[in-house]
Amino acid sequence: MAAIAEIRIDLFRMPLPQPVEAYAAGVMSGFDMVVARIRDADGVEGVGYTVMHEGQGPAVAAVADGPLRAVLAGEDADLIEGLWRRMYRTCHYCGRGGPVAFALAALDVALWDLKGRRLGAPLWRLLGGFDPKVRVYAGNIDLNFPLEKLLDGGMASVEAGFRAVKMRLGRPTLAEDVRRAAAMRDHLPDDVEMMADANEAWRVDQAVRAMRALAPLDLVWLEEPIAPDDLAGYAHLRSLGLIPLAAGENLHTVPEFAALIRAGGVDFPEPDLTTCGGITPFMKVARLAEANGLPVISHGAHDVHVHLLAACPNAAYLEWHAFGLDRVMAEPLTISEGACTAPDRPGHGIDFDWERLAAHRVG
Amino acid sequence: MAAIAEIRIDLFRMPLPQPVEAYAAGVMSGFDMVVARIRDADGVEGVGYTVMHEGQGPAVAAVADGPLRAVLAGEDADLIEGLWRRMYRTCHYCGRGGPVAFALAALDVALWDLKGRRLGAPLWRLLGGFDPKVRVYAGNIDLNFPLEKLLDGGMASVEAGFRAVKMRLGRPTLAEDVRRAAAMRDHLPDDVEMMADANEAWRVDQAVRAMRALAPLDLVWLEEPIAPDDLAGYAHLRSLGLIPLAAGENLHTVPEFAALIRAGGVDFPEPDLTTCGGITPFMKVARLAEANGLPVISHGAHDVHVHLLAACPNAAYLEWHAFGLDRVMAEPLTISEGACTAPDRPGHGIDFDWERLAAHRVG
Repeated sequence: MAAIAEIRIDLFRMPLPQPVEAYAAGVMSGFDMVVARIRDADGVEGVGYTVMHEGQGPAVAAVADGPLRAVLAGEDADLIEGLWRRMYRTCHYCGRGGPVAFALAALDVALWDLKGRRLGAPLWRLLGGFDPKVRVYAGNIDLNFPLEKLLDGGMASVEAGFRAVKMRLGRPTLAEDVRRAAAMRDHLPDDVEMMADANEAWRVDQAVRAMRALAPLDLVWLEEPIAPDDLAGYAHLRSLGLIPLAAGENLHTVPEFAALIRAGGVDFPEPDLTTCGGITPFMKVARLAEANGLPVISHGAHDVHVHLLAACPNAAYLEWHAFGLDRVMAEPLTISEGACTAPDRPGHGIDFDWERLAAHRVG
Repeated sequence: MAAIAEIRIDLFRMPLPQPVEAYAAGVMSGFDMVVARIRDADGVEGVGYTVMHEGQGPAVAAVADGPLRAVLAGEDADLIEGLWRRMYRTCHYCGRGGPVAFALAALDVALWDLKGRRLGAPLWRLLGGFDPKVRVYAGNIDLNFPLEKLLDGGMASVEAGFRAVKMRLGRPTLAEDVRRAAAMRDHLPDDVEMMADANEAWRVDQAVRAMRALAPLDLVWLEEPIAPDDLAGYAHLRSLGLIPLAAGENLHTVPEFAALIRAGGVDFPEPDLTTCGGITPFMKVARLAEANGLPVISHGAHDVHVHLLAACPNAAYLEWHAFGLDRVMAEPLTISEGACTAPDRPGHGIDFDWERLAAHRVG
């Protein structure tokens, strides 16, 4: 029994080093981060975080600090499946998505981290343990960059050790997208893989044309060509066999992933623990993908996801998160020959630099 | 051009006259309500509201008062489709459900009310106009009531003018549920129709057994036998042809309704404008149902929904909302011979008693 003695929720507003753009998000110059700290009666503390677009943090913090905190107070921190279900159900009527899934994530990660720290076990071993070395790709956010800066960003990733680089699509014309993607493919070394992410820029008919035009580039995947909840659209696009499809950062529940996979709409399920309710549902999606003969990839939060993918036989790629939280963490992950290694420190092994963070606290 | 000059968001915590229980919600002794007021440059004001379980209002108010307010400020209030899409997209990454759909709802209703008041037109005419008289049913919440109180509640609804009454299922055993439902059917006059609502109490296998046991009672529908996002489960249950199925209060987007309808999983789509993003998406679901040869019913918020159903040729039943907001409204709806009539006052025609509400303001 590890009774939950203290729960602390903080909201931070973090600036980005430079404004970056993705189609659905638009130009971002900063982001919100909600951090949950859960301390048990023995004084052991677990930490979880989730990030979202600027201005959306207050709702997430309100859910975490209100109804979810009320579920957890005084309970046995070890019974995560039970606590997760109670948190989910408490917010069911006004949940199943958006701020609730993010708030759940922060607390669920804190509970898993706490469990790992109590046991002295790193998450990747706790979750099953497969291979601590995980292939990584650079999830560059660069839709607003002029061509030269776009290409420089791709090469900077290669120089940083990546062997796979993603760029964004969704410029005003398909012709421009194809030109930029072809230029990137030409610019990157032949043995560096390339992905593209449209962030929902297109209708289904536009996506078909885009996929025909991009197919010669031999992308590892095309991500989110259309809206995330158009199951029939995904199934149609995938049936064409032109480019493998990735999707999932905008799915907030396990049943949403189950529906997309059942519809035959995805090659690379891409859950994000910060948007789908935490480690508990992420692992269910990863296992669901495996059972369906599919790989699993992650979105964002590479410092935690590296542990999860290191526990999955079907792990394909870890996205290296462009938001740069490394600058407020001790011992950030490093990249070597296109891979990251999950640390063997207890829990997720992330220690925030609270003093540096304090300057960004807004709630 | 009706430029938006002022937006006011208030959060109220309202007690219920007596504690009521539904399976997924548990026992409720009060609820939260977020009210949005939008005033244009000419001083015309539109009002919208949404309700949710106690404690979940702060997150909804934070979304409405933060990112959504920022979208609306200074814009032309008349261009609701455009504003709705921009609000939806702004909160897309941390949305598609929960608090965001509710916050959208309050603002969308306020925009429609404003439009009606500017034009001097009641909503039901503005939205198309079909028949102001809408069949109504009593959506009683009574899972926690002992048998006698349950039956008294059903008869009280008949005496109040209802010709259709719904009761709740989800007691600890199916045998008890069947006994209570059979007793209610015996107790109600033969010409009064009866519905039942399990509020997600069952797994699919349990729902099959429940439907076999309840089929002899000739229910108009069985509502939410299982989790709202189990599309395959709904399709299976409906294929049995035992009892027509109703669902929708826990679907938060038009694509979610499209997926359920496409799966063949529902007889009575039941959108709730307060949970699915407002009047704009509700009408799309209603028209989608019509195009698929299905009726449409509403959930909660009868004072606004009466207008929407009065604009739908496929309207089947208006749920009379058990939360009793009538007590803080001038000229509440009345029931006569099992029907309500949409008022011919401009907009939705609801005027809150702000003085009475003030005592319940919490944010």
